[in-house]
Amino acid sequence: MERKKVVLAFSGGLDTSFCVKYLTEEKGYDVYTAIANTGGFNAEELKVIEQKALALGAVRHATLDIEQTYYEKSIRFMVYGNVLRNGTYPISVSSERIFQAIATINYAKEIGADAVAHGSTGAGNDQVRFDLTFQILAPNIEIITPTRDMGLTREYEINYLKEHGYEADFTKLEYSINKGLWGTSVGGKETLDSKLTLPNEAYPSQLVAEGEETLKLSFEKGELSAVNGQVYTDKVAAIRAVEAIASRFAIGRDMHIGDTIVGIKGRVGFEAAAPIIIIAAHKMLEKHVLTKWQQYWKEQIGTWYGMFLHEAQYLEPVMRDMEKMLESSQRNVTGTVEIILRPYGYTLVGVDSPHDLMNNDFGEYGEVMKAWTPDDVKGFTKILANQMKIYFNVNGEED
Amino acid sequence: MERKKVVLAFSGGLDTSFCVKYLTEEKGYDVYTAIANTGGFNAEELKVIEQKALALGAVRHATLDIEQTYYEKSIRFMVYGNVLRNGTYPISVSSERIFQAIATINYAKEIGADAVAHGSTGAGNDQVRFDLTFQILAPNIEIITPTRDMGLTREYEINYLKEHGYEADFTKLEYSINKGLWGTSVGGKETLDSKLTLPNEAYPSQLVAEGEETLKLSFEKGELSAVNGQVYTDKVAAIRAVEAIASRFAIGRDMHIGDTIVGIKGRVGFEAAAPIIIIAAHKMLEKHVLTKWQQYWKEQIGTWYGMFLHEAQYLEPVMRDMEKMLESSQRNVTGTVEIILRPYGYTLVGVDSPHDLMNNDFGEYGEVMKAWTPDDVKGFTKILANQMKIYFNVNGEED
Amino acid sequence: MERKKVVLAFSGGLDTSFCVKYLTEEKGYDVYTAIANTGGFNAEELKVIEQKALALGAVRHATLDIEQTYYEKSIRFMVYGNVLRNGTYPISVSSERIFQAIATINYAKEIGADAVAHGSTGAGNDQVRFDLTFQILAPNIEIITPTRDMGLTREYEINYLKEHGYEADFTKLEYSINKGLWGTSVGGKETLDSKLTLPNEAYPSQLVAEGEETLKLSFEKGELSAVNGQVYTDKVAAIRAVEAIASRFAIGRDMHIGDTIVGIKGRVGFEAAAPIIIIAAHKMLEKHVLTKWQQYWKEQIGTWYGMFLHEAQYLEPVMRDMEKMLESSQRNVTGTVEIILRPYGYTLVGVDSPHDLMNNDFGEYGEVMKAWTPDDVKGFTKILANQMKIYFNVNGEED
Amino acid sequence: MERKKVVLAFSGGLDTSFCVKYLTEEKGYDVYTAIANTGGFNAEELKVIEQKALALGAVRHATLDIEQTYYEKSIRFMVYGNVLRNGTYPISVSSERIFQAIATINYAKEIGADAVAHGSTGAGNDQVRFDLTFQILAPNIEIITPTRDMGLTREYEINYLKEHGYEADFTKLEYSINKGLWGTSVGGKETLDSKLTLPNEAYPSQLVAEGEETLKLSFEKGELSAVNGQVYTDKVAAIRAVEAIASRFAIGRDMHIGDTIVGIKGRVGFEAAAPIIIIAAHKMLEKHVLTKWQQYWKEQIGTWYGMFLHEAQYLEPVMRDMEKMLESSQRNVTGTVEIILRPYGYTLVGVDSPHDLMNNDFGEYGEVMKAWTPDDVKGFTKILANQMKIYFNVNGEED
Repeated sequence: MERKKVVLAFSGGLDTSFCVKYLTEEKGYDVYTAIANTGGFNAEELKVIEQKALALGAVRHATLDIEQTYYEKSIRFMVYGNVLRNGTYPISVSSERIFQAIATINYAKEIGADAVAHGSTGAGNDQVRFDLTFQILAPNIEIITPTRDMGLTREYEINYLKEHGYEADFTKLEYSINKGLWGTSVGGKETLDSKLTLPNEAYPSQLVAEGEETLKLSFEKGELSAVNGQVYTDKVAAIRAVEAIASRFAIGRDMHIGDTIVGIKGRVGFEAAAPIIIIAAHKMLEKHVLTKWQQYWKEQIGTWYGMFLHEAQYLEPVMRDMEKMLESSQRNVTGTVEIILRPYGYTLVGVDSPHDLMNNDFGEYGEVMKAWTPDDVKGFTKILANQMKIYFNVNGEED
Repeated sequence: MERKKVVLAFSGGLDTSFCVKYLTEEKGYDVYTAIANTGGFNAEELKVIEQKALALGAVRHATLDIEQTYYEKSIRFMVYGNVLRNGTYPISVSSERIFQAIATINYAKEIGADAVAHGSTGAGNDQVRFDLTFQILAPNIEIITPTRDMGLTREYEINYLKEHGYEADFTKLEYSINKGLWGTSVGGKETLDSKLTLPNEAYPSQLVAEGEETLKLSFEKGELSAVNGQVYTDKVAAIRAVEAIASRFAIGRDMHIGDTIVGIKGRVGFEAAAPIIIIAAHKMLEKHVLTKWQQYWKEQIGTWYGMFLHEAQYLEPVMRDMEKMLESSQRNVTGTVEIILRPYGYTLVGVDSPHDLMNNDFGEYGEVMKAWTPDDVKGFTKILANQMKIYFNVNGEED
Repeated sequence: MERKKVVLAFSGGLDTSFCVKYLTEEKGYDVYTAIANTGGFNAEELKVIEQKALALGAVRHATLDIEQTYYEKSIRFMVYGNVLRNGTYPISVSSERIFQAIATINYAKEIGADAVAHGSTGAGNDQVRFDLTFQILAPNIEIITPTRDMGLTREYEINYLKEHGYEADFTKLEYSINKGLWGTSVGGKETLDSKLTLPNEAYPSQLVAEGEETLKLSFEKGELSAVNGQVYTDKVAAIRAVEAIASRFAIGRDMHIGDTIVGIKGRVGFEAAAPIIIIAAHKMLEKHVLTKWQQYWKEQIGTWYGMFLHEAQYLEPVMRDMEKMLESSQRNVTGTVEIILRPYGYTLVGVDSPHDLMNNDFGEYGEVMKAWTPDDVKGFTKILANQMKIYFNVNGEED
Repeated sequence: MERKKVVLAFSGGLDTSFCVKYLTEEKGYDVYTAIANTGGFNAEELKVIEQKALALGAVRHATLDIEQTYYEKSIRFMVYGNVLRNGTYPISVSSERIFQAIATINYAKEIGADAVAHGSTGAGNDQVRFDLTFQILAPNIEIITPTRDMGLTREYEINYLKEHGYEADFTKLEYSINKGLWGTSVGGKETLDSKLTLPNEAYPSQLVAEGEETLKLSFEKGELSAVNGQVYTDKVAAIRAVEAIASRFAIGRDMHIGDTIVGIKGRVGFEAAAPIIIIAAHKMLEKHVLTKWQQYWKEQIGTWYGMFLHEAQYLEPVMRDMEKMLESSQRNVTGTVEIILRPYGYTLVGVDSPHDLMNNDFGEYGEVMKAWTPDDVKGFTKILANQMKIYFNVNGEED
């Protein structure tokens, strides 16, 4: 009888390493490992992961390269929407999970897998991201989650692997680092305590730059198009270029205190130099080229879009509707923003755009006015006051 | 025949100085000058202003002390709502104008004035703030605005005053500074150009601190109650204490690019160390003590509240409704926030609160879970997926 | 050994009748039945229910009278917020469930029960309403749901009761009717099919009136205060008075197509003469006494409040914040509304209110204008056009 | 010297008739009359208007046929958004004004006019709609509004016309009727008084049908595609077909109490059989084919879109963003809705759609459940309760 196929979302860590062996030995599956790379891994790291998978007994290993897809379907809209969860967090790793889940389940369908497995535990958001996406896109493929179901300790897993002939360095690091294209999350003992923040050394990037440095980011219809004048058609490369420059200033570190999908509060540190700088610049450009109400409504939509992306609701049809609105709003978001970088911070200098609504012949704030007379403003104010004037006339003053 | 009375909102600057003389000499009014102090002036400055008014020929001068009113009716709600216009600007001077306008018109009604005058020009927001408030609260009192109506040059005004026997130093400063309790705005040639930012020296506060310093802010039902452990019942004094500490680090400088009430874009620099730090700390505390949906809805209401406050709509009845909602949301916003200050920036360290929703027995993010089983989350996710599962089942995948 | 106590939310229907016997006989509980009456039952019906409970073997039966609480904590705010789910459904029975759940769990805590039971099935909203409320208010009391867990057929339950010496008429009716103070829901074969609607005879109230009839509803700060001039301090009685008048016209019938808490679509018919008429009248009064932005924001808040109430989220703290806002908005919602009733429909005639913003000296729509000049409106429009004028000037016309 | 050209938006009524003569005789203009027909006039009426214009001395008259444009750019989105202002008014005539203004100013630019004129008075919304649109699209063309500026009486205008050799029947009707494709507005003495409603005879359509009649409306991606099975590619014709059927039942009459752009309250009666029925059917179809959050967000956007359309803000760029979102939401809004019409009202029977989310294999509300187990819902509810459970655990019960 043919063995059943399971596709395992494999990262090379302890949990998913255990899963390869466990599913093969105890459950009798042919294990197809897969890693969907949204940009967090380089070629060398991916090679090591593949070797681990095969060494553990995977019948086949697949590297699913989805960097461009992830940019096109997620980062792009997060920039359009200036998405910062809770005002701070660029939804770094959590948005990547969704696209990893989609790539994994599509791969499972492609090779006709009977089951799909992941190594998430039962306390966090990732389990929901994987399960939800898998179920929606392939309701008939079974989902297997040994780590969550069995509640095993690290020691147990390490011993099990050893007993089954696999040894590797699974030392638990002081800080768990989750690197991605759109930011890196950092967990540690401080993130478990409301009163503390991470020490500098917990962050992967360290301050190496001194003094100030000017950075110029250009946007074309809302997308990052050039960095310091160098044009990028590969947007992922453009993001990496910004990251390389800005991370030297230790910019973009913060703590995200969020409401998890399962209802508890969670804290996680992050560093995200490129996302923070890119979104800040993009937003400033928008202040110059969009109308007041475009900005108001983009913020409404962007806030919700970010929340739903974070909470595993990427496949909700309303997200497609919102993407259309966000995309439409970007038709004039073209121009260059100048930023001064300095240790741990930055200053937005200014904006140069052909669509700048400040560059016009109709009036200049606080100085001269060419397009209207004092009487026009008096009339404006009189009419604007009408409803309140009537209200106070009818009801008297409120205390 | 008795001379008619006009109350003039007097600042001691060139425009309102001109108005005293002009209204007295050319228009035959008895000019009652009044300055409504929301906290931007100290006793000495107020004394100087009074002397100027009387020297110019005002029949009487009144100092209207509305610091506590301004705190109680405006700052308090701006903190509850974490109000930062466009994500950056704490609505510093613009919120003060409203309360100055209210105090001025109430004074005019009190002394039975026939008219009320202000010195705003025809290009900015302040004219709307004054006119609108005056009309609503006293529709029968005439509004006089010589500066706006006559479009006079500085030279003309200075000469006119000189000819009428009044001389003073009216040298135009390179940067126009507008100091208030909730922040100071700075205008200059850079703020008229989209591409530039203000130089360091344009800001009234300069970096004088070195290294890092810890600051502890305590809140009681959303109101700042203690600074580094020292309890304040006078909230205005508490704000000043924070300002004194944080402004030495040159914190809270930024550029506001906003949509003025009259529809044009305007840029203004500001420094607001206390507001920026207080709101950041307050918001972080809220992340720990409020539920997800409380935060979501507070943000909706706070954004609109800030917009309307900025746009002279403070008297709109909906503002009273929003204040009730914001106030209600603060019932558990009690606790202490630790912040590290450093030159030009700060780090929010953590929060200590009896209402912290992270301090509980139900589960800890990413680590252990005590209050539910893996099967509970699987069930949760299954049900959460239902509508999307049906949608994809009925409609197939979307591209 | 003492037997354990369970409080059972008892309706007298087949499922909960089965539960009394089953929990007593098979599970060894002392069963304390309780019915929380939100206004759907009269004294006689409550008596019959009590007798059934005791006949089935309940050790004690409690009638929890929560009509006034339900009005005060729920109906009141649904009227303030003009809450009609999906634009049609007054959240009739579903809002009552929440308050029944709260009363039941409070009773369980009061008598020191070990467990609490309800008879909801596993496909609908009510199970979530009960479970969620029970868990939040008494996390340590066990929840027992035999009907849901065992998936029993009606036949099985009837036989079981018969075998245990209890017989009653449990004939399944063609239409399941759920009567409440704020409306009656009706389910039947037509509600299971998207293409059909309920026949007239499925509704409990039938058209008995002829021609037209005038109804006058008076409101005092948003609350129904008089019906046809008769003042009511008992608001529940006022609602019943409206229901008695309007239901004769077969008003307020419709079909609710909603998204259930568990993610599937559900259809249910309802008749709710009083809620529909009261909300329509209240909303029309608000159009006259509230400002544009009060109406806009009330609608935002009311829509969400209704959604959360419907979806078992009544205890979410944000609901308390919203109630404060809704309550504040009602300070001038005082006046009388005239309505013409006719078979299956009604016409809102008009409004008489001391707070009517149409009754004023500032201007009349479309006729004369007293408070402004043509030039004022021209100035108003000019300034209002500013940002768009600039936008088109900078960007050219859009296709 | 060449005479200057003015384009006059001409309706054939007293005000614009006066304008033709007045602008020709007193102001020395060549008057180019234009009527932009959005569907309110038939060929014969247009002919009469043309004859009047020429008889009054217009140098040329143009009939601008913009029915299809109006449908494509306005009605289509009002249906997508289920736009009913204040929950009742389909923005009948007011949306047409905008497109009439656009067509008029485009015509003025086309023929190189120096000025553009309209006959609106100074008290209503239309003046703002015309002025705003004209200014934005042609800031350099002068706007002339004799009726508003001169505040003339009907008698004066009639006499002036008579003296200049033009006589016609300008009897003021008891009710002013404004007929349009998307509804007809009715003004009269009752609409000036909060307490009254219009009598039946004030409405242009009268009840002529008896009993009940079934109507079937089919939609294709949100657009009305067939009426009782007859397919329409001309959507304007489809709307007229629905109007012909439904107006016989006197359906769609109501009173709009609105906040005018100039801040006062205004009342206007309307009849709009087709819009009311089409939107009701469309919305019911959406309840079956859209997800909960699609409906929620469509309502947000639709409400604002309707408000801005009504308030002359059609050209605001945010409207284009919203149209993209609304359009995207319609991708599955395809199906047929059955409605029963009866005098003064209707009942929505049901929906038949291949995208109906009720037609699926995952579960049926209140009956059976196939796609999940009782334990799944228990787990779901447990996790859903988490945050509130923690909140009550930390803070205790709220009163």
